Amino acid sequence: MQVTKTVEETRKQIKQWKKEGKTIGLVPTMGFLHEGHASLIRKCREQNDIVVVSDFVNPTQFGPNEDLEAYPRDFERDSKLCESLGADLIFAPSPEDMYHDPHAFVSIDTLSETLCGKTRPIHFKGVCTVVTKLFHIVAPDRAYFGEKDAQQLAIIRKMVKDLNFDIEIVGCPIVREEDGLAKSSRNTYLNDKERQAALCLSRAVKTGKEVIYIGADAKEVLNPMKAIIEAEPLARIDYVMMVDALTMQPIEKADRDVLVAMAVYIGKTRLIDNFSYGV
Amino acid sequence: MQVTKTVEETRKQIKQWKKEGKTIGLVPTMGFLHEGHASLIRKCREQNDIVVVSDFVNPTQFGPNEDLEAYPRDFERDSKLCESLGADLIFAPSPEDMYHDPHAFVSIDTLSETLCGKTRPIHFKGVCTVVTKLFHIVAPDRAYFGEKDAQQLAIIRKMVKDLNFDIEIVGCPIVREEDGLAKSSRNTYLNDKERQAALCLSRAVKTGKEVIYIGADAKEVLNPMKAIIEAEPLARIDYVMMVDALTMQPIEKADRDVLVAMAVYIGKTRLIDNFSYGV
Repeated sequence: MQVTKTVEETRKQIKQWKKEGKTIGLVPTMGFLHEGHASLIRKCREQNDIVVVSDFVNPTQFGPNEDLEAYPRDFERDSKLCESLGADLIFAPSPEDMYHDPHAFVSIDTLSETLCGKTRPIHFKGVCTVVTKLFHIVAPDRAYFGEKDAQQLAIIRKMVKDLNFDIEIVGCPIVREEDGLAKSSRNTYLNDKERQAALCLSRAVKTGKEVIYIGADAKEVLNPMKAIIEAEPLARIDYVMMVDALTMQPIEKADRDVLVAMAVYIGKTRLIDNFSYGV
Repeated sequence: MQVTKTVEETRKQIKQWKKEGKTIGLVPTMGFLHEGHASLIRKCREQNDIVVVSDFVNPTQFGPNEDLEAYPRDFERDSKLCESLGADLIFAPSPEDMYHDPHAFVSIDTLSETLCGKTRPIHFKGVCTVVTKLFHIVAPDRAYFGEKDAQQLAIIRKMVKDLNFDIEIVGCPIVREEDGLAKSSRNTYLNDKERQAALCLSRAVKTGKEVIYIGADAKEVLNPMKAIIEAEPLARIDYVMMVDALTMQPIEKADRDVLVAMAVYIGKTRLIDNFSYGV
């Protein structure tokens, strides 16, 4: 497995592989890899000749009061995991190599303004921009994103369609701890009590899945979910919403493909979880 | 020469050429081709195995009160010219094929806010977005832009750098009529009197080139240029400015690579012209 630290050396290797006619899969990550990332890398390994994992904590998707500095990093461990999963290359650039006095960016309106976009107004602009850059550097045939970041996945799919990227976007299911908590690099922020409290998210998801039906009112689905979270003293709801699965706009009835998504603070840690429901 | 009308058939042909190892050059145009475009196509023909000309009046780069409807079109003539210049493919999509409920876009700040960006606030967002789409559809090795649209060229270069497009941007000199008027599809809007009056732009450029020197104050260069335009009753200045050639920000002295650029209304027609000066 190769490790590249610059755009230039990455591009050079990719061009060589392209010349040899290899198909390329990209798994974009911010590192501190867990079983969720591993599932993306495994899927990528199945579907492509070459597996590239990018490992970059992208500063432009963090707001000024967010956890850029605190975000956990462990490149040694990431590197070993990628190697064990059969990745061919990890691209781990420095922020300086990725951004030199940047002025051009990629944004998406409407879809980025609900759910996490309300609390994190610049987040998806940063995501769209860095993903565009990674797509141009790695030139993948397919790219892999987790369904845990459901709004991100919907936004990337729309960006790919609107801007005519010739890349297949593959979404992979949420991976959970045995007790139900969705895997996340941010789970590392939780102390023991918070770790227990955090189970209210997956419990709410489970309840939501049980009560939803075709044509259900949003309130019928969301109220029991909210009740579960509100019963947990360490939890504070950012949002619990039902939205159209394509547009990310709030809807009143589950009369089409929907996403039921939530963000909840457990102490100071903001966690997300969701489920999709199709008609 | 092939003519394609959809993204899908264009991509299919491009993939075939890529498979054969051909290099691809793209000349993005809004059609109604003139000698300026022809010079881009010729340069593209020299440097690439395959020459693709896109011919698309992009609605998203026109403001609500601009000339989208009036913009001249003559696909038959464009097609013959491209064929005579040895182009391999014209891509002439419909607006409906290019845009389906678009929400993602590419923008550039700072560079897009001066010069033409002041009068045309959404223009460069439309340009960056459509050029990104064309780059993704045609996947060129090189793309050709005229230096007449100097701000556009600077913006495209910066966008390519910031977003890591693997495409060489080739700028080509302004082509002028015998009497000096810069070639433009919009020259067709001018009546005989206006056509004469429009010569004040190229006369001002000529004068600017004569008076500029390394370290010259902006006023020393711009005042005689403005005087020439102000002497013309049918002309009204939008701007005449000296800016840093990379950042497009106004500067006081010609102490680096500069662009001296102008936009002038001749009657209702807005024309542009410019020159570059390097230290």
